[in-house]
Amino acid sequence: MKAKDYAAPGADSFVIRGNIVHTPAREKFDIHEDCCLVVEKGKVAGIYARLPQKYASFALEDCRGDLIIPGFSDLHVHAPQFYLRGLGMDYELLDWLDKNTFPREKKLEDMDYARKIYGDFADALARCGTLRAAVFGTVHTGADLLLAELLKKKGLAALVGKVNQDMNSPKYLTEDTKKSLEETEEFIRSGVWTDRVRPIITPRFAVTCTDRLLEGLGKLAAKYKVSVQSHLSENKDEIAQVAQLFPKAKDYADVYDMHGLLGQRPTLMAHCIHLSEREIARMAKSGTIAVHCPDSNLNLKSGIMPLRRLMAKGVKAALGSDVGGGHDLFMPRTIVRAVQVSKMNFILHPDEEELSLPEAFYLATKGGGQFFGRAGSFEKGSEADILVVKDPGAETVLESIEKFIYTGSADDILARYAAGRRIDQDI
Amino acid sequence: MKAKDYAAPGADSFVIRGNIVHTPAREKFDIHEDCCLVVEKGKVAGIYARLPQKYASFALEDCRGDLIIPGFSDLHVHAPQFYLRGLGMDYELLDWLDKNTFPREKKLEDMDYARKIYGDFADALARCGTLRAAVFGTVHTGADLLLAELLKKKGLAALVGKVNQDMNSPKYLTEDTKKSLEETEEFIRSGVWTDRVRPIITPRFAVTCTDRLLEGLGKLAAKYKVSVQSHLSENKDEIAQVAQLFPKAKDYADVYDMHGLLGQRPTLMAHCIHLSEREIARMAKSGTIAVHCPDSNLNLKSGIMPLRRLMAKGVKAALGSDVGGGHDLFMPRTIVRAVQVSKMNFILHPDEEELSLPEAFYLATKGGGQFFGRAGSFEKGSEADILVVKDPGAETVLESIEKFIYTGSADDILARYAAGRRIDQDI
Repeated sequence: MKAKDYAAPGADSFVIRGNIVHTPAREKFDIHEDCCLVVEKGKVAGIYARLPQKYASFALEDCRGDLIIPGFSDLHVHAPQFYLRGLGMDYELLDWLDKNTFPREKKLEDMDYARKIYGDFADALARCGTLRAAVFGTVHTGADLLLAELLKKKGLAALVGKVNQDMNSPKYLTEDTKKSLEETEEFIRSGVWTDRVRPIITPRFAVTCTDRLLEGLGKLAAKYKVSVQSHLSENKDEIAQVAQLFPKAKDYADVYDMHGLLGQRPTLMAHCIHLSEREIARMAKSGTIAVHCPDSNLNLKSGIMPLRRLMAKGVKAALGSDVGGGHDLFMPRTIVRAVQVSKMNFILHPDEEELSLPEAFYLATKGGGQFFGRAGSFEKGSEADILVVKDPGAETVLESIEKFIYTGSADDILARYAAGRRIDQDI
Repeated sequence: MKAKDYAAPGADSFVIRGNIVHTPAREKFDIHEDCCLVVEKGKVAGIYARLPQKYASFALEDCRGDLIIPGFSDLHVHAPQFYLRGLGMDYELLDWLDKNTFPREKKLEDMDYARKIYGDFADALARCGTLRAAVFGTVHTGADLLLAELLKKKGLAALVGKVNQDMNSPKYLTEDTKKSLEETEEFIRSGVWTDRVRPIITPRFAVTCTDRLLEGLGKLAAKYKVSVQSHLSENKDEIAQVAQLFPKAKDYADVYDMHGLLGQRPTLMAHCIHLSEREIARMAKSGTIAVHCPDSNLNLKSGIMPLRRLMAKGVKAALGSDVGGGHDLFMPRTIVRAVQVSKMNFILHPDEEELSLPEAFYLATKGGGQFFGRAGSFEKGSEADILVVKDPGAETVLESIEKFIYTGSADDILARYAAGRRIDQDI
């Protein structure tokens, strides 16, 4: 594949001409065949069939025939599990964690290993066109900061979490509560952060966190105005365990809520499969985003998330690869899986209509991008996260985007621009 | 990726050394780390930790570190739908056929188009490591024979079907019954066929075939000792239509059965989602193979095939990509989808255990390969269908095969041998 002569990295005002597709609204693809997308200082200035005179001096990237689409957002992904994609998928969640995941996370105490896996992870994210991500690290704060550094260096936008866990974990991943909170505060106060790469409070999940830890994390989130991410209601055994561990909580969601970790700050909760009506209402009211991870839910036999029902009740949603419970970092395949799972859900619940392809695309672009501000579509003023996708050779632009999503791969992405900045091709 | 210096095409006796994995039994992977697979005159002679003296003169392909696995079998795939993978997936079966599929099949009346799409299809099959396939053509007999020719030229083993349909189809695909039968007989008697590329009787599905056509096809199958393939019980609307069209039949399966098209000759029936107990028993007794097409069943909202239940009742099973209802020709992804769908089925029916990864791998190798004789594993005497897969870089051979199946692509296949013959790399 011959790379075209795209703008040099660093040029954040330019014009790209091609077949532009995005989803400002979730119902349908907004398609602009052979049009110009104008980027001015890293933001979208507009889409034009004929380029206005005032942009005539901008560098023009001629990608006629190629697709121009927004970058993807992956709102639930575990960087330390990058190398275990696809391994041990015959386990369910709790066994998979014990036998497959925790022993590998231990390795992150070694900074050389951290540099390798997190470097590979950042490269792969960019290669896949995932320009924004909410990422779990491990309990190893040094490695977590390195992860942030590497994502920043790659030019990606990310929320990076130092993971907290102080019970029901292997000894080698069990933190002292006080130390965990101190390290989290240091993590948040580190000099590594920028507008685009920010820390996020990340209790692993209720099962592995004491009340005291959750309480402390809630206070840190409030004190430093930091977002929050965790797992919610993924697996029935897990839910039973949470009920036993937190008898005072009304339900699983309330474990987070009572400690200021459910919507008091912008919050991401992955999975949300087996929620009660009360939990759904609380998620909606608090603005907590439910991150749907369809591959992981299938692989770990967790269940079918009732996404349509959650959305109908006002819960905001986005998509996550959930690598390593999910086996694939390439978001178009998560889009396809979300559609497929929703069709299965429809068969079981005919009142819950399946996701259309544009809806699922929306979740992986604007739906997730919104968590970062204005991103994930080409509406005027949005951050210019752009992927140039090699002409899929279909008869219409609609069929081109369908074909890329269903049958494309990272190799089809010819160029990536994050907030208007070209990401290096040597990845 | 640098190709190693493999044996020249045509050399069908040789030794390959590497990490050998296959599934002679479906329960688990049979793993031979750093062993020699001996191929003698196109058949597997054995697997050895130390090469016996009598094979010392054979050419040795040193693929240490790489995986050596059987080629895949795809027992349900529509060659004329190759270009529509991923398009129009928001339709259900009957609409998808009318709006998306039939108009594209019409194009096969043009032999130039046929040469292009069927050439691309044969290349892609080989590239994906699918060395055996049961393939649907269209009603266009000339194009169907060209398809057989191209698959043969590629070195693949295939059953190729000229499709029959003489009602409930667009005018341009509706055959005259008598002519359809005459052309089918000519098709079977063509000089194109070999031991490895054979014709298969292919009524499209009951909905599009009159009694008279089915009866004639049953007679041709018996007269020429040809296998049979079709679709069975994919979609509830389809089943209702079949019941209306064939009031004398006991059920959908019986429409084929009463015309000698269900197990009287070796038979493949794709989908088999909504079968009655009687139909399941009849499939088992007649030795009809149920071809599970999980991606297609999800994409077209057809339902969840109760594969475990069918297998428990003695129905033989294999996997199909069902391109274009399925969007992906690469069988490892169909293996993954079969496991995922079976996990979903387990959630709904906890007495129907999910497929393990080796079981699904078995279905895509030996399970399908059996339809062609002895193929799909490395048992002594099996046809030597071999894929060399680039070392996935995992810690154990078991993890390597897991990693390839879950995260690999056709690019990871370094070499393909069909019955011991190297398939050209220029694909």
